[in-house]
Amino acid sequence: MSDIVNDFNAYRSKMNAEIMADNNKVIKRIFNLDTNAYAPGALDVKTKELLGLVASTVLRCDDCVKYHLESSHKAGLSKAEVVEALSIATLIGGTIVIPHLRRAYEFWDALENQK
Amino acid sequence: MSDIVNDFNAYRSKMNAEIMADNNKVIKRIFNLDTNAYAPGALDVKTKELLGLVASTVLRCDDCVKYHLESSHKAGLSKAEVVEALSIATLIGGTIVIPHLRRAYEFWDALENQK
Amino acid sequence: MSDIVNDFNAYRSKMNAEIMADNNKVIKRIFNLDTNAYAPGALDVKTKELLGLVASTVLRCDDCVKYHLESSHKAGLSKAEVVEALSIATLIGGTIVIPHLRRAYEFWDALENQK
Amino acid sequence: MSDIVNDFNAYRSKMNAEIMADNNKVIKRIFNLDTNAYAPGALDVKTKELLGLVASTVLRCDDCVKYHLESSHKAGLSKAEVVEALSIATLIGGTIVIPHLRRAYEFWDALENQK
Amino acid sequence: MSDIVNDFNAYRSKMNAEIMADNNKVIKRIFNLDTNAYAPGALDVKTKELLGLVASTVLRCDDCVKYHLESSHKAGLSKAEVVEALSIATLIGGTIVIPHLRRAYEFWDALENQK
Amino acid sequence: MSDIVNDFNAYRSKMNAEIMADNNKVIKRIFNLDTNAYAPGALDVKTKELLGLVASTVLRCDDCVKYHLESSHKAGLSKAEVVEALSIATLIGGTIVIPHLRRAYEFWDALENQK
Repeated sequence: MSDIVNDFNAYRSKMNAEIMADNNKVIKRIFNLDTNAYAPGALDVKTKELLGLVASTVLRCDDCVKYHLESSHKAGLSKAEVVEALSIATLIGGTIVIPHLRRAYEFWDALENQK
Repeated sequence: MSDIVNDFNAYRSKMNAEIMADNNKVIKRIFNLDTNAYAPGALDVKTKELLGLVASTVLRCDDCVKYHLESSHKAGLSKAEVVEALSIATLIGGTIVIPHLRRAYEFWDALENQK
Repeated sequence: MSDIVNDFNAYRSKMNAEIMADNNKVIKRIFNLDTNAYAPGALDVKTKELLGLVASTVLRCDDCVKYHLESSHKAGLSKAEVVEALSIATLIGGTIVIPHLRRAYEFWDALENQK
Repeated sequence: MSDIVNDFNAYRSKMNAEIMADNNKVIKRIFNLDTNAYAPGALDVKTKELLGLVASTVLRCDDCVKYHLESSHKAGLSKAEVVEALSIATLIGGTIVIPHLRRAYEFWDALENQK
Repeated sequence: MSDIVNDFNAYRSKMNAEIMADNNKVIKRIFNLDTNAYAPGALDVKTKELLGLVASTVLRCDDCVKYHLESSHKAGLSKAEVVEALSIATLIGGTIVIPHLRRAYEFWDALENQK
Repeated sequence: MSDIVNDFNAYRSKMNAEIMADNNKVIKRIFNLDTNAYAPGALDVKTKELLGLVASTVLRCDDCVKYHLESSHKAGLSKAEVVEALSIATLIGGTIVIPHLRRAYEFWDALENQK
């Protein structure tokens, strides 16, 4: 079941390495910003991960949702907290969000079943 | 050929059941509204299904398109009616809709070839 | 109250004339297609107008919504039919559609109060 | 300066009243859900307001941003917290978010200068 | 006629200054990237401005379109080149782009009539 | 490695043929416009392909990105030019574009490794 986690991370790492090696300055800085923006500041890491998750969900980006689900899991957020965030995303984004909600539930289960 | 219909429905049913079992009140009510909104009212079921289809198409949600193609098929809409609705979606949404149009044609064929 | 209708149409006509006079072939053909696509075919004019309205609403294009509200009004659609179409758009598109729903209600009122 | 707050709320209240009076069941239930979804649960009100704010910002809905800025202000969130949430929205949503960021800053100032 | 240019630039400058003064690191870096990305590189400035214009148009961000129209004008692009880029944006993005096309034509005229 | 190119083109050709055979006038004209819009005019073919690529990328349409990557490759654009265009798309569209950037890099590699 957790293969969808491993597959996602393997492809992501491989292609990120290729993009970084290509050395485009604008893209590299955006990647760096992506790392920095979720560091603790006025808001803590858990809140920031939920913000990233909800933004990714309403924009209907499955890979971004997976990334933030995994970061949320690592940050110690509970399923109840994650689902409540996803419910707000579904209300704001409408029923077109539902297919992404299905895949989010599947990916969260895979994260919890990982060893 | 109709495997894409069965696969879609099997995954959809499995994950919807999991989401419903999780019992988030906001999500459950949105699912219920989704059922009610397409019931006959001032507009008949066929018209409502076409509205759902066109909205799903311009928002480029393949799973939503599949869902409404199947409901449209069950409601007795003809391919000519469905394609005319899709043509309006393509004009409004532009050529980025075309990849979704390809998959819609493929799925409609699968629906017609189902036994 | 119906000033918002007149203002919309005056600006729209003026700028459309300027765009047409500029004579870009691709843009002109898209404008022509826009006229043809809503002519009666497998679907009648009323259904097509509602399709255009719902697509415009979920894509959150206020000017497109106004245009299709006026065409829907001219095609003889009732407020009950238009609102039911808008309710499907709100469900599919989510609560971000609500500000556009407010402006749609305001514009429909202006259409009904026109002399 | 706080006129943009009053104008927004006056129009919003007037049109919401008209929509509610029209009594469409689907739309009414979505409005009700909108109230319930931001009540405290697994997540507290402040976190939920920031989720609504970020979702509204990446979807580039100025009226939704204004609504959540005002709710965030009422919930006692600081400008530093709100801006950090907006910075994540700008990174995820890209530079097309910047015009909405400008209007968000202007509206927040108006909220702080209200009497 | 060129008031729409001056109004746009005055508001943009005032709010950008306020955002920069607020000193959020992520937002400041995105603003800096925005300046750097359009500098000549493998592609020349004119091509890059057209890329920014088309991206802004299909994403239907009027303020972004205005900004890139002004930069395109300053970079010495002709109306014929700009309109051809806009025609591609209209084809890809569909008829929902048309209201933004109207405002783009109006703004370009204002740029040409500026003293 | 170039299988992703062949698979994409085979499916695209098969479904385009089916859509054309279905003979919907609006859809056929949009397909024709799609061919004409990228012909040389005030702008040359290379510039137009980059415009199509950037529009497809910010709208996050993987199939459209693949199509324009292949056309860009055929038109003789270099990887450096294509990547610079993609960097502008990533800045404008935000980090949600990154998953599409990964797939664009993979597809470009496949195009270069084709025989």
